Amino acid sequence: MSGSGFGTLFRVSTFGESHGPALGAVVEGCPSGVSLTEADLQSDLDRRRPGQSRFTTQRREADQVRILSGVFEGVTTGTPIGLLIENTDQRSRDYSKIKDLFRPGHADYPYWKKYGVRDYRGGGRASARETAMRVAAGGVARKLLSQSGVMIRGALTGIGPEFIDRDQWDWAQVAENPFFTPDAGAVARFAALMEEIGTAGDSIGATLEVVASGVPAGLGEPIFDRLDADLAKAMMSINAVKGVEIGDGMASGTMRGSAMADEMIPAGTQDAAGRADAEFLSNHAGGVLGGLSTGQEILVRMAVKPTSSIRIPRRTIDRHGAPAEVVTHGRHDPCVGIRAVPIAEGMMALVLADHLLMQRRFDGR
Amino acid sequence: MSGSGFGTLFRVSTFGESHGPALGAVVEGCPSGVSLTEADLQSDLDRRRPGQSRFTTQRREADQVRILSGVFEGVTTGTPIGLLIENTDQRSRDYSKIKDLFRPGHADYPYWKKYGVRDYRGGGRASARETAMRVAAGGVARKLLSQSGVMIRGALTGIGPEFIDRDQWDWAQVAENPFFTPDAGAVARFAALMEEIGTAGDSIGATLEVVASGVPAGLGEPIFDRLDADLAKAMMSINAVKGVEIGDGMASGTMRGSAMADEMIPAGTQDAAGRADAEFLSNHAGGVLGGLSTGQEILVRMAVKPTSSIRIPRRTIDRHGAPAEVVTHGRHDPCVGIRAVPIAEGMMALVLADHLLMQRRFDGR
Amino acid sequence: MSGSGFGTLFRVSTFGESHGPALGAVVEGCPSGVSLTEADLQSDLDRRRPGQSRFTTQRREADQVRILSGVFEGVTTGTPIGLLIENTDQRSRDYSKIKDLFRPGHADYPYWKKYGVRDYRGGGRASARETAMRVAAGGVARKLLSQSGVMIRGALTGIGPEFIDRDQWDWAQVAENPFFTPDAGAVARFAALMEEIGTAGDSIGATLEVVASGVPAGLGEPIFDRLDADLAKAMMSINAVKGVEIGDGMASGTMRGSAMADEMIPAGTQDAAGRADAEFLSNHAGGVLGGLSTGQEILVRMAVKPTSSIRIPRRTIDRHGAPAEVVTHGRHDPCVGIRAVPIAEGMMALVLADHLLMQRRFDGR
Amino acid sequence: MSGSGFGTLFRVSTFGESHGPALGAVVEGCPSGVSLTEADLQSDLDRRRPGQSRFTTQRREADQVRILSGVFEGVTTGTPIGLLIENTDQRSRDYSKIKDLFRPGHADYPYWKKYGVRDYRGGGRASARETAMRVAAGGVARKLLSQSGVMIRGALTGIGPEFIDRDQWDWAQVAENPFFTPDAGAVARFAALMEEIGTAGDSIGATLEVVASGVPAGLGEPIFDRLDADLAKAMMSINAVKGVEIGDGMASGTMRGSAMADEMIPAGTQDAAGRADAEFLSNHAGGVLGGLSTGQEILVRMAVKPTSSIRIPRRTIDRHGAPAEVVTHGRHDPCVGIRAVPIAEGMMALVLADHLLMQRRFDGR
Repeated sequence: MSGSGFGTLFRVSTFGESHGPALGAVVEGCPSGVSLTEADLQSDLDRRRPGQSRFTTQRREADQVRILSGVFEGVTTGTPIGLLIENTDQRSRDYSKIKDLFRPGHADYPYWKKYGVRDYRGGGRASARETAMRVAAGGVARKLLSQSGVMIRGALTGIGPEFIDRDQWDWAQVAENPFFTPDAGAVARFAALMEEIGTAGDSIGATLEVVASGVPAGLGEPIFDRLDADLAKAMMSINAVKGVEIGDGMASGTMRGSAMADEMIPAGTQDAAGRADAEFLSNHAGGVLGGLSTGQEILVRMAVKPTSSIRIPRRTIDRHGAPAEVVTHGRHDPCVGIRAVPIAEGMMALVLADHLLMQRRFDGR
Repeated sequence: MSGSGFGTLFRVSTFGESHGPALGAVVEGCPSGVSLTEADLQSDLDRRRPGQSRFTTQRREADQVRILSGVFEGVTTGTPIGLLIENTDQRSRDYSKIKDLFRPGHADYPYWKKYGVRDYRGGGRASARETAMRVAAGGVARKLLSQSGVMIRGALTGIGPEFIDRDQWDWAQVAENPFFTPDAGAVARFAALMEEIGTAGDSIGATLEVVASGVPAGLGEPIFDRLDADLAKAMMSINAVKGVEIGDGMASGTMRGSAMADEMIPAGTQDAAGRADAEFLSNHAGGVLGGLSTGQEILVRMAVKPTSSIRIPRRTIDRHGAPAEVVTHGRHDPCVGIRAVPIAEGMMALVLADHLLMQRRFDGR
Repeated sequence: MSGSGFGTLFRVSTFGESHGPALGAVVEGCPSGVSLTEADLQSDLDRRRPGQSRFTTQRREADQVRILSGVFEGVTTGTPIGLLIENTDQRSRDYSKIKDLFRPGHADYPYWKKYGVRDYRGGGRASARETAMRVAAGGVARKLLSQSGVMIRGALTGIGPEFIDRDQWDWAQVAENPFFTPDAGAVARFAALMEEIGTAGDSIGATLEVVASGVPAGLGEPIFDRLDADLAKAMMSINAVKGVEIGDGMASGTMRGSAMADEMIPAGTQDAAGRADAEFLSNHAGGVLGGLSTGQEILVRMAVKPTSSIRIPRRTIDRHGAPAEVVTHGRHDPCVGIRAVPIAEGMMALVLADHLLMQRRFDGR
Repeated sequence: MSGSGFGTLFRVSTFGESHGPALGAVVEGCPSGVSLTEADLQSDLDRRRPGQSRFTTQRREADQVRILSGVFEGVTTGTPIGLLIENTDQRSRDYSKIKDLFRPGHADYPYWKKYGVRDYRGGGRASARETAMRVAAGGVARKLLSQSGVMIRGALTGIGPEFIDRDQWDWAQVAENPFFTPDAGAVARFAALMEEIGTAGDSIGATLEVVASGVPAGLGEPIFDRLDADLAKAMMSINAVKGVEIGDGMASGTMRGSAMADEMIPAGTQDAAGRADAEFLSNHAGGVLGGLSTGQEILVRMAVKPTSSIRIPRRTIDRHGAPAEVVTHGRHDPCVGIRAVPIAEGMMALVLADHLLMQRRFDGR
């Protein structure tokens, strides 16, 4: 009955509902001495924030984060960092129509089955609104990771059946368009598809990738807390994610070993412990072997299903078991996968920060 | 630096290397009063055991499991269950050729980077041999689950680019062929492909699915310990798994909401708490919504990459950083995905048992 | 580097410093359907609140708690409960004199050694101010426990060398005096001692007890998460507690088995599972045998050391290693043990709620 | 329903009943490169082993430990260490007389209430026999700690009302007498008391202390996983322990601040991070302030209650709720506190190893 905490040494515990007074988090385990300000966290929150373009929900939330503890004179003290975002757009809507209905494809029905009590306003705890706190907490992790030279970047690679041209991948483009996509040439196609979807009152899925570079070799704790296993859990825990791949992912199942195994040659360098570094000639493994980072880029891909909040009528039941029909109006993202990019980056940051702390060398002191 | 434990209430901790004296596990949290014998666990172990067909490794391990505690007069006592399998096929090989080499695509290199010490015999802890204990522990979980009417079945759906015809799916076939495949018509194709791979000295990936039926609605602990998130971690923690899908998985990213959302109609029944049950008209969600089970079948699909132990020479480095070439001879599975079927079943059992215990109703007593 | 979370299923994570903007907590794992209001928590907070009598610190904090999530229409929803108390008495003091000094008997020195960064204002995170959140979270636990008929009461049994007359124990008296003491006859002695201590500019230790009644038999998770072990940790984690006893406690070491073992006779009743209840003829064990509750009252006793914030000069060093002298002025409790009573009650509630959830019966559904 | 694991990074999970086939443990988190042999663990096991003197039980167990994994060529590999002790003295006794009785002061009754199934042979899991695995696992922790200059020693300071003369404390004496006592002058008194107890068919409690020296300042994770809190849990989790004290312990409740606060002067040295060390002029705090180690000796004291296995008839009930009388014959320790000394040392080692790993410095690599 718990489940709102994530991580072992670098651990975040969150609370908050879509239409409650506030969202919050406790971030435990950040070492002391890391410089941290609210502005550091706000930039990622602003990327996730609704209402940034006409392709995302028009709900207006300031998503202004406050740091309530754990930072003194601009640096972390090693004590837990309290984060708070007040909900400002708690528009008093009339929920009487949907309060007893279970929207198909949403968490309404299993939440009712599990708890027998349900905050039906905007999805309550099951709303993607809670992900704001993942982004905020992930921002703390990013500050820590940046000290170690780890950089995390995400990008949207497909909306529905439209995919980018990977040869046109340009990280600099991601910040330049409302789709977080690295292929400028795909923007027009994505926009056209979104228009069509909007007109149809439908929604659409998306595919995205998160890449971490600068990750030292050896992160991950076999055999269960493998780095890839923890990344898979992190991503699958994001609302609407239905598939997670590392490196070649599902395609690995169709490949031969001679094509899959990434060959190594000497890098000519060595790590802090004096062990020789390898240079890899390819990265089918996505930077993880045996559950441990190899020092290559870590590549995670995921699919985000289309939201079920659509204007097309769907059959369902109400809490009394009677048949019903539901049509969702209101301010919903027609493609929730777009805003998932900074969320996935945040979750990867949480995983890597935790494993980086786990892996600190033991020198007997 | 831990990481060998899995689960919260139903928790397994394992130990053991490929060529060490034994593999073992502690299974904590099994309620008292569950009937359990060594034979209950042996049947699944025998399914995973090497040497069962000419398509798997010819290494011969009896994999005979002993229950050392936690069971008294045929039933569990609620105390931890100790499991032990002695390694019997510790053939004294000469490892001098490979002890300083990092096999590409294997865990050799990152293990060396992480630990600086490496049991190079047969992969040590990174060998798939440890999965025997997952199957044994999963067997305990299955006994518990069977009390609740939960059944878990797995099947291989593809070897390399060859896939089954899903219309021919017949669970009864799975036990009748060496590929754990439900489509009898695919057996000849799979066999032919395996022959070709063997002749080429290469290896091949596989795709498999695990399905749980009879799972009550509401299992899963939002927002991080979602049922699908824990399943993703469980499966990705299995050696060589590179992608995990729930329901429509990666394809969800290409779909529209009107196609994805599973409609509901009244089932006409109610659960133990008196809440109305829904009947779903489809199962694109794979039995999980908002991280909670819906009462439908839970469907998990995964890709297992081809093993890197192949007879084709590959470039690598040794631990001194010098370039080298490696060719793997010996008794290796050309398609490790085949034997992964009972392992994935075991991992799913561990996840479901844990969540079932988490979800026990609180009645104030 | 974490450590700010407590509990497994019923879990609280807290944040906040003495002179920061706010204290907060996430309470995970409270089942749905428990009625809960801010007033439920405020009553215990008010008991702990400073400035309630002339024998405690005159610092004035409203300690007004807000529930930010997890409660809908007056009952818990099963999702995490966010709690927040704004700090209102952040008087802008001049800390320049003590910011580089390590107060003897305080956490200043080891915090500096551990973190190298220190919020020196009022003790920062090491201040007893954080215990307000233990009381608030414990209040949620109490609501849950009350559904099961569990009642927790605490009392002060000694200040310095002055102890109560146990024959005069009257629970009704606890709320009637500023010492939380059940012996009305001891009040005058305690008050006189406190006056003397105040005049001397010194401080004084205290002894207190917490008693839980109505606890069902069988709570506790052998062999490490025994009920008494978790209670010992809970109490020793409270600031200034230096000793914890269960039942006869340290005196057990001096006793004979014939005196210590609590005899049983038939109670003539049985529990929900149909197992016969025993009536115990004594309670030397303090309600715990083999780490499990016996159904008797659970008795925990603890000693709270005198605070080191005294007006008598003490030798110390500063952060540069130079010798120094420190004298503490300001608004400090001369006997921190007094206000520890509601804190210890809160910690016991957290432990019992967690174990009660752990012990829910598994009925296969 | 779990509870058989202890620790976060350095974690031990144990299994095994008194009269089952074997006891075992998985020790996770030991860093790689620590030299470790079975002989390292055997020496402490031999100190705990029954039958070492006429003052302990005459049950004969070889307690020969095997290391089944995690060690390669004499050093740890970083993978989990499997430990196994086969039970050799499973004398086939007739348990029919006591199998339905609940021995007063034993775990029989609450185990029955909790589990409804009970391995009645020799106490099953509740037997102190499980502590052999704590000693073995603690031995691994000691090897790790010794690399950091941490030394742990235990001593018995009292049997019943007879206490040592602390001025005669000589650590060298502990290994020279059957009581693990540091005061040679107390041996005769202890022996005489034990004779008397034996003749009376009674049992007797004991008081003991464990001291760690060489512990760096700053270990402990506020606010809940304080070092003293974890030590309190560790000790209270040992069978028959009913009270735990740090430093002045329960006496702190009677003291004044001017007497309790340990003054500091410059030590003239600094730690690895360049922070000045203090020299303390006393150690009333027992080496822990604010839940963190101060660099002083860590002193933990505990009381072990007299065993309830006595030859004097006691009233009880049977599992059907009928009144009964029980008299315990057989090979029992008349003072279980004696053999608790190496067990308490082992538990302290587990706590310190875990906190030492938690405290590794983060240097950004």
